[in-house]
Amino acid sequence: MKTNLDPIGLIHTPFVEKPETPIQASFSQATGRLEVFPEFADGLDDIEGFSHIILIYLFHESSGFQLRVIPFLDDQLRGLFSTRFPSRPNPIGLSVVRLLKREGNFLDIEGVDMLNGTPLLDIKPYVEDFDVRLNTHSGWYVNRTKGKKQN
Amino acid sequence: MKTNLDPIGLIHTPFVEKPETPIQASFSQATGRLEVFPEFADGLDDIEGFSHIILIYLFHESSGFQLRVIPFLDDQLRGLFSTRFPSRPNPIGLSVVRLLKREGNFLDIEGVDMLNGTPLLDIKPYVEDFDVRLNTHSGWYVNRTKGKKQN
Repeated sequence: MKTNLDPIGLIHTPFVEKPETPIQASFSQATGRLEVFPEFADGLDDIEGFSHIILIYLFHESSGFQLRVIPFLDDQLRGLFSTRFPSRPNPIGLSVVRLLKREGNFLDIEGVDMLNGTPLLDIKPYVEDFDVRLNTHSGWYVNRTKGKKQN
Repeated sequence: MKTNLDPIGLIHTPFVEKPETPIQASFSQATGRLEVFPEFADGLDDIEGFSHIILIYLFHESSGFQLRVIPFLDDQLRGLFSTRFPSRPNPIGLSVVRLLKREGNFLDIEGVDMLNGTPLLDIKPYVEDFDVRLNTHSGWYVNRTKGKKQN
């Protein structure tokens, strides 16, 4: 079963090259702008009430994948699904960003970690009661993310 | 630009009808099983170290969408992208579940909120430093999710 997905917009960011792009949205204070195509703009109603939104997008510059990779924050091979590495069987990215302002079909956001021109697939509101889990175990990431959170 | 996505597995859950399916993973203590197709099993290495994983999947029973919907937890029309409603331009679902056990290419999970047979697109590790935002504003959801969190 194959499913065709068609972007609902584009993510404009300051990052045109992969090496300068932050590893995670939570490590970034960079601002960007979501352009939601006009035919979907009505779907943005009520979004101003949310301080944070979840972006689902395509890693459009990634091609192919390997099942074991050395992640950016590690120096050992890890199973791909235990990482957030961008080259994946389905190259779907996920970032939580701060919503600063809506202007029509544009959303100003903070904490971007994706390349300029990234195709946007979906926007979901971030809801703490749905999305926050505390006291979790985070496998090989332990001690590799400390002190980097900005956003 | 259209992108073809091909599932990497299936999500087996107790829910065969939409009305009996929990509204959110965090409201559910139901257990399920991820079947990752054997050709992707090596990508599951190191995942046992994580207590929680993010599932990205297709809302395969949804068809079409409207830009304003009455969400399950509300009685007013809301902009679709301010809701987690399943009928979306790109019908992609997102749930955080607890990982109980890996057996080869199968993962036992807790806190499922999707229909049985849901096509799985991706698995990402849940990492608090990436995924947790606190003291957020959650728009119209405020006071509608209180006391329902189970998982």
